[in-house]
Amino acid sequence: MRVLLINGPNLNLLGRRDPDLYGAVTLKEIEDAARERGKALGAEVECFQSNSEGALIDFIQERTEGAGGIVINAGALTHYGLSLRDALADSRLPVVEVHISNIQARERWRARSVVTPVAVGQIAGLGWKGYLSALELLVDRIKEAAQ
Amino acid sequence: MRVLLINGPNLNLLGRRDPDLYGAVTLKEIEDAARERGKALGAEVECFQSNSEGALIDFIQERTEGAGGIVINAGALTHYGLSLRDALADSRLPVVEVHISNIQARERWRARSVVTPVAVGQIAGLGWKGYLSALELLVDRIKEAAQ
Amino acid sequence: MRVLLINGPNLNLLGRRDPDLYGAVTLKEIEDAARERGKALGAEVECFQSNSEGALIDFIQERTEGAGGIVINAGALTHYGLSLRDALADSRLPVVEVHISNIQARERWRARSVVTPVAVGQIAGLGWKGYLSALELLVDRIKEAAQ
Amino acid sequence: MRVLLINGPNLNLLGRRDPDLYGAVTLKEIEDAARERGKALGAEVECFQSNSEGALIDFIQERTEGAGGIVINAGALTHYGLSLRDALADSRLPVVEVHISNIQARERWRARSVVTPVAVGQIAGLGWKGYLSALELLVDRIKEAAQ
Amino acid sequence: MRVLLINGPNLNLLGRRDPDLYGAVTLKEIEDAARERGKALGAEVECFQSNSEGALIDFIQERTEGAGGIVINAGALTHYGLSLRDALADSRLPVVEVHISNIQARERWRARSVVTPVAVGQIAGLGWKGYLSALELLVDRIKEAAQ
Amino acid sequence: MRVLLINGPNLNLLGRRDPDLYGAVTLKEIEDAARERGKALGAEVECFQSNSEGALIDFIQERTEGAGGIVINAGALTHYGLSLRDALADSRLPVVEVHISNIQARERWRARSVVTPVAVGQIAGLGWKGYLSALELLVDRIKEAAQ
Amino acid sequence: MRVLLINGPNLNLLGRRDPDLYGAVTLKEIEDAARERGKALGAEVECFQSNSEGALIDFIQERTEGAGGIVINAGALTHYGLSLRDALADSRLPVVEVHISNIQARERWRARSVVTPVAVGQIAGLGWKGYLSALELLVDRIKEAAQ
Amino acid sequence: MRVLLINGPNLNLLGRRDPDLYGAVTLKEIEDAARERGKALGAEVECFQSNSEGALIDFIQERTEGAGGIVINAGALTHYGLSLRDALADSRLPVVEVHISNIQARERWRARSVVTPVAVGQIAGLGWKGYLSALELLVDRIKEAAQ
Amino acid sequence: MRVLLINGPNLNLLGRRDPDLYGAVTLKEIEDAARERGKALGAEVECFQSNSEGALIDFIQERTEGAGGIVINAGALTHYGLSLRDALADSRLPVVEVHISNIQARERWRARSVVTPVAVGQIAGLGWKGYLSALELLVDRIKEAAQ
Amino acid sequence: MRVLLINGPNLNLLGRRDPDLYGAVTLKEIEDAARERGKALGAEVECFQSNSEGALIDFIQERTEGAGGIVINAGALTHYGLSLRDALADSRLPVVEVHISNIQARERWRARSVVTPVAVGQIAGLGWKGYLSALELLVDRIKEAAQ
Amino acid sequence: MRVLLINGPNLNLLGRRDPDLYGAVTLKEIEDAARERGKALGAEVECFQSNSEGALIDFIQERTEGAGGIVINAGALTHYGLSLRDALADSRLPVVEVHISNIQARERWRARSVVTPVAVGQIAGLGWKGYLSALELLVDRIKEAAQ
Amino acid sequence: MRVLLINGPNLNLLGRRDPDLYGAVTLKEIEDAARERGKALGAEVECFQSNSEGALIDFIQERTEGAGGIVINAGALTHYGLSLRDALADSRLPVVEVHISNIQARERWRARSVVTPVAVGQIAGLGWKGYLSALELLVDRIKEAAQ
Repeated sequence: MRVLLINGPNLNLLGRRDPDLYGAVTLKEIEDAARERGKALGAEVECFQSNSEGALIDFIQERTEGAGGIVINAGALTHYGLSLRDALADSRLPVVEVHISNIQARERWRARSVVTPVAVGQIAGLGWKGYLSALELLVDRIKEAAQ
Repeated sequence: MRVLLINGPNLNLLGRRDPDLYGAVTLKEIEDAARERGKALGAEVECFQSNSEGALIDFIQERTEGAGGIVINAGALTHYGLSLRDALADSRLPVVEVHISNIQARERWRARSVVTPVAVGQIAGLGWKGYLSALELLVDRIKEAAQ
Repeated sequence: MRVLLINGPNLNLLGRRDPDLYGAVTLKEIEDAARERGKALGAEVECFQSNSEGALIDFIQERTEGAGGIVINAGALTHYGLSLRDALADSRLPVVEVHISNIQARERWRARSVVTPVAVGQIAGLGWKGYLSALELLVDRIKEAAQ
Repeated sequence: MRVLLINGPNLNLLGRRDPDLYGAVTLKEIEDAARERGKALGAEVECFQSNSEGALIDFIQERTEGAGGIVINAGALTHYGLSLRDALADSRLPVVEVHISNIQARERWRARSVVTPVAVGQIAGLGWKGYLSALELLVDRIKEAAQ
Repeated sequence: MRVLLINGPNLNLLGRRDPDLYGAVTLKEIEDAARERGKALGAEVECFQSNSEGALIDFIQERTEGAGGIVINAGALTHYGLSLRDALADSRLPVVEVHISNIQARERWRARSVVTPVAVGQIAGLGWKGYLSALELLVDRIKEAAQ
Repeated sequence: MRVLLINGPNLNLLGRRDPDLYGAVTLKEIEDAARERGKALGAEVECFQSNSEGALIDFIQERTEGAGGIVINAGALTHYGLSLRDALADSRLPVVEVHISNIQARERWRARSVVTPVAVGQIAGLGWKGYLSALELLVDRIKEAAQ
Repeated sequence: MRVLLINGPNLNLLGRRDPDLYGAVTLKEIEDAARERGKALGAEVECFQSNSEGALIDFIQERTEGAGGIVINAGALTHYGLSLRDALADSRLPVVEVHISNIQARERWRARSVVTPVAVGQIAGLGWKGYLSALELLVDRIKEAAQ
Repeated sequence: MRVLLINGPNLNLLGRRDPDLYGAVTLKEIEDAARERGKALGAEVECFQSNSEGALIDFIQERTEGAGGIVINAGALTHYGLSLRDALADSRLPVVEVHISNIQARERWRARSVVTPVAVGQIAGLGWKGYLSALELLVDRIKEAAQ
Repeated sequence: MRVLLINGPNLNLLGRRDPDLYGAVTLKEIEDAARERGKALGAEVECFQSNSEGALIDFIQERTEGAGGIVINAGALTHYGLSLRDALADSRLPVVEVHISNIQARERWRARSVVTPVAVGQIAGLGWKGYLSALELLVDRIKEAAQ
Repeated sequence: MRVLLINGPNLNLLGRRDPDLYGAVTLKEIEDAARERGKALGAEVECFQSNSEGALIDFIQERTEGAGGIVINAGALTHYGLSLRDALADSRLPVVEVHISNIQARERWRARSVVTPVAVGQIAGLGWKGYLSALELLVDRIKEAAQ
Repeated sequence: MRVLLINGPNLNLLGRRDPDLYGAVTLKEIEDAARERGKALGAEVECFQSNSEGALIDFIQERTEGAGGIVINAGALTHYGLSLRDALADSRLPVVEVHISNIQARERWRARSVVTPVAVGQIAGLGWKGYLSALELLVDRIKEAAQ
Repeated sequence: MRVLLINGPNLNLLGRRDPDLYGAVTLKEIEDAARERGKALGAEVECFQSNSEGALIDFIQERTEGAGGIVINAGALTHYGLSLRDALADSRLPVVEVHISNIQARERWRARSVVTPVAVGQIAGLGWKGYLSALELLVDRIKEAAQ
């Protein structure tokens, strides 16, 4: 089973970006931990990050075939990236949304996610380990659906 | 470490309540699984459910002292239980919100949570195992803060 | 056939509560008339009133099994009792909403009912006899569905 | 006593119009049943239907004198027929609003009725028999007021 | 003359609850001070607190008879307790609303009070002594009305 | 010069319709007074009333040619008669809107006029003589424009 | 195959009505062109125009049987003609909405169409030839559905 | 009989201020014409203009006693001068609002008048002669009320 | 200690202004009572009233230095006097807002106060004696802060 | 004459993307059909698709010179692509908007198009052949303007 | 060339007013710097400050003649001073709006400026030197227009 | 000191783009003038323009280190580019927003800037020279902060 782990704009700066809010772990370290956890769960984790919505859509279109699901932190595109949303919906894969900080409790516009309606669920505010829980729950769900 | 696992109105019907939406696992089974997982993590999980907002507040006030955090699925009180919210805030404990279904993607009023602003994070739409992930992430967080 | 007749907060004061608006008949008298009318229709009418949302939910959960439908005047909970609404929906029984006064034509907030979307219909503004019409139409509907 | 039974646009199609939503009974059958029930209650029921708001207003203006009350299903004019509403208010007769389906639980715009504020009450979502209950409750009210 | 002093959810924690916002005086001390001040004004002050809206309504219904007025701090029920509001209105007693903090200047939802429209006035943001001023002004008003 | 004086739904009842609000003068009397005043100003006043928006539009389309302006009280169509509005705009005649009562100070929806944006001005709340003032100011305006 | 071509209020003035906005072609010429184009496509085009919503509904009810679809420019009724909308929905025919001008880019209220939700599509802002394209696409669609 | 004619901010510039919108007549000329028309109607017209809301309120408070009514063009204070509004209401005199241009059809904020709810009526969009019509209708009304 | 007692537009009319709503006591009598109560509390009360926002601001700017706090009833400026609000905020003094009537329960626009966010608290609906309670609570607060 | 045919994000998946909603025809087939139809009309059709808003803007800027008009289906950028909108407006070319499905009747946010105000018209809900009609009507319009 | 430099309510306190937000420079120093910079640019800078909207309007009306433009910081009147706005518009001079702090990023109501629509531009959040830049850009603009 | 001068979508067309609104100066000329003015102020100005939000974010991330501040005209991204906004915030550099036209006074949506809350200030409506003033004020601010 192959699973996509996608990060949107500015998340390549994790570890450097406002550490009080986002923590000190880098995106590289998160991706490594996810790949490792994936291996333990019997899933290959394929990682991608871009600051460009177009590039994120291209990646999803190209890598959907044969994939089992998507874990995504769309960054600020969460709030207006309707094209990204359509790409996720078109993939017909189960999508789990991750946010490192508690976006519902920050600025008003961060509380609105255009990704949520096409996702099966979301984990927010629980730090970088939320990626790993998302991965577990997603893989669990894919296995159940496959039975 | 003691952690509170609180469920609000109608969640005592889990397993019987619309199984397509909420799954077939009962609240009793979830609470047992949470206590067991807690034991593995070195935490005592204390469970409580009520259909009455007043009783939930009484429980929080009485059991806050000495507790390390709260995992809560407030049911429909999520959307208007401002007194419950104040009780959670007054407890000064870290709170993780759990929802079995993806509330953001259902009726419009379910997208609004009055609990979220006093929670550190939330897990939604990932089924009953979301309780266990919430517990893990919460205990992890308490341990980190204790260092 | 057993039918539940449920009244919410402050309706125990009927007869004393603003008689110009609500009339001079007491809740006891309404419940007696409903039981009698029920007998004529071949239905046992089981009555309940409480000022507490939690107690109303407990009653519905306990008395749903074997019941054929619900007539309810939720009082002010009509406008914010989302937990009560979930309990009504979970019961999977046909629900008829009754209001003694014309709530659509009073204060703005009284025009919004969170119960209506889970009800099959409503009778409003037609005085205490509206309970009896609701009972008749509900029993009629249950019989038709049973054919 | 003479009572007016008025139906607005498209209700002449009852029985043919979306039977799942509106049932299989025709307007003719409803009007006959209402006249018969009226006879039993000691009231002459005068029926009228039109697709034109102007014709409905003309009818109300001409037939108000000597009438005791109005039962009306204004169809979609319920939601924007402010001239019809003024005609109802100008008649100074008690008005009972009937809707066959549960308009509060359908499209958002169907939840707004411009007729309700000039009506004494409403019955909705209880099928074509709601006309008969409306008639009974209206006649009951007229008799009480006449005492 | 008997006057009711009612406190809603979480106010039993006064003195422990966020002291920067609510001060260090306990509810017990406030109630004692109110009883003493009442004695000086010739009024018996009967105190009640509950975390449950239903229990607050029961208390009001049972203790209204023979009472001269109500001082109430409804806690977070201020913002959504429509059943409590109806109970206050049904009592037909003069009601003075008290808030320890300046609710108009905090979160947006705290600025909306469903109690205010049935109250004769309100005191907010002036600390626990606001209860005593409310009591004085209420007793003063009752005496004037009694002349 | 020929001027159109148009009255919308329910205004044929003037004199009978809620006299406290609309006065005791009948539409016939107003039209006679307007014709007389018109004669003094050198203008033929052509009067029309209908309860049907379609008939009002037909009249405007047929009688526009050769007319100098329109005085109109559109009744409740003022608030939603967008087709009537288009007919007035298409006529390219100056339009003066008249309301007998102060519509801005009554129900909220009466404050919104879809006619106003295609009118040169309006007179409201000044009783039936407002028609005569409207006529004078309109004729005055037509004469000035003709110079 | 028979197709209905319906025009609403004020569209009988096409050619005379604000030519900058609506062009210089008359309704008669459009209807002739549509009938001719229909003939080429193997469809009889039946035309109707009225300034009255009631008459438009009557026409639809009477001419639906045996018809294959409807092309409609509802004029200003587009924005509030909910009864017309219900008539279109009740016909269960495919409906294509036409507007000569770009209504989305004019006054705010013209951007809202109550017809659109019951139409299969719309053509706007492309002048009178939009009627012909609508006809072609509608006939094309009917033929495909008939296969 | 004495009548007050009051003009608010920037109206002292009439004649110089955007003549396309407001015309070429000066405030002095309007006041003279109003005094003369007043004389013919048996009323003394007392004129006042100020750019300061405080000065307008002072004038109303001082000159109310013995006055019969007020004609006012409040300029931009029409839209936010709530203190001026209270002064008009406190005077308990009949107030007629005048606007030279059609304020309902200009910027959105000009459509909202805080003066209207305390006025008996308004004349708008009919140029400077609207002042004279307002005067006539006001005097007429005062005389009728005096009978 | 010197305390400012400030009254806004139209409050100089107290005693004459709608006595049912505002009572029969004059502003002069309130100011005298406040000065006397102040003396008992060890505070000099300096009074000011104006109908002009600019004059109120000038007074605050000139009399802030050496003052301990402000009691203010801003009249209708409460709802739009943003400059007055800035002057109060710039003074850095504790401000207590007083309203004689229950502004939250009157017209909708009176429920919004731009003063509240810069005030420490407010007293509303408790009649003219609310000024004295405000004074007491303010002085109490100043003394506590001075300790 | 050269005409641009532009497709936005995810439209490269046409034929694969939710066929019930978008049909089974691929973008390649649509582009070929458009080129062919263009040839018949005497117009060269230049096609472009991208998932990136920036690339779409680059294309418009580079290919505007010498082009006669634009047919565009902006995909989800329709709803938030304000930069794309500015590029279309800056091109000063006539733009026709195409949508394969009836976007006005789907999710609420799909009803809002930021492209429409800079387009001359739109075709929606009429399937892939809507592109060809758009092309015809656009070429027709360009030819007329060139006369 | 003469240019007006106008400051609204509370800006006479600059230097004393919340220095963290507004800086330590006084209004006197700003005016001196502006006059000096004006001299260098060949423009006489005439300064005025008032806490009263009426006085600001009087100043603009009296000093417009012969002036070339206006630099204004309207203080809190920025957000509701519609009379001031009309005075600026009536002057027909180019207006540049200055704000010392970044008003768009503070309280919500500060983000709305009623002055902006009648200004040619604005400088905000760049401290007191923003006045000098505004002056330069305004003079530059006047000179260009004069060519 | 190095300062970034960033221009968003469509601004590469300056000089060609609607000259009435944006002027005749090209982006190249503005960048040259800015570099020169920078030299005079002791700052190196590094310029960048792109039509792609992703490319703008990449540039900011790569060039932030060692830079002193940012002048940005984000074009239409100003209104929805939340990812760009996060990149600006993450840079922790002072940002000055520039707009050539008065965006607050154009279409409603142009009045909302998602950049403003992370900027220290903005200059709008003052033409291309606004860039130079922004540069001066920014450099001035950086120097002050460095002291």
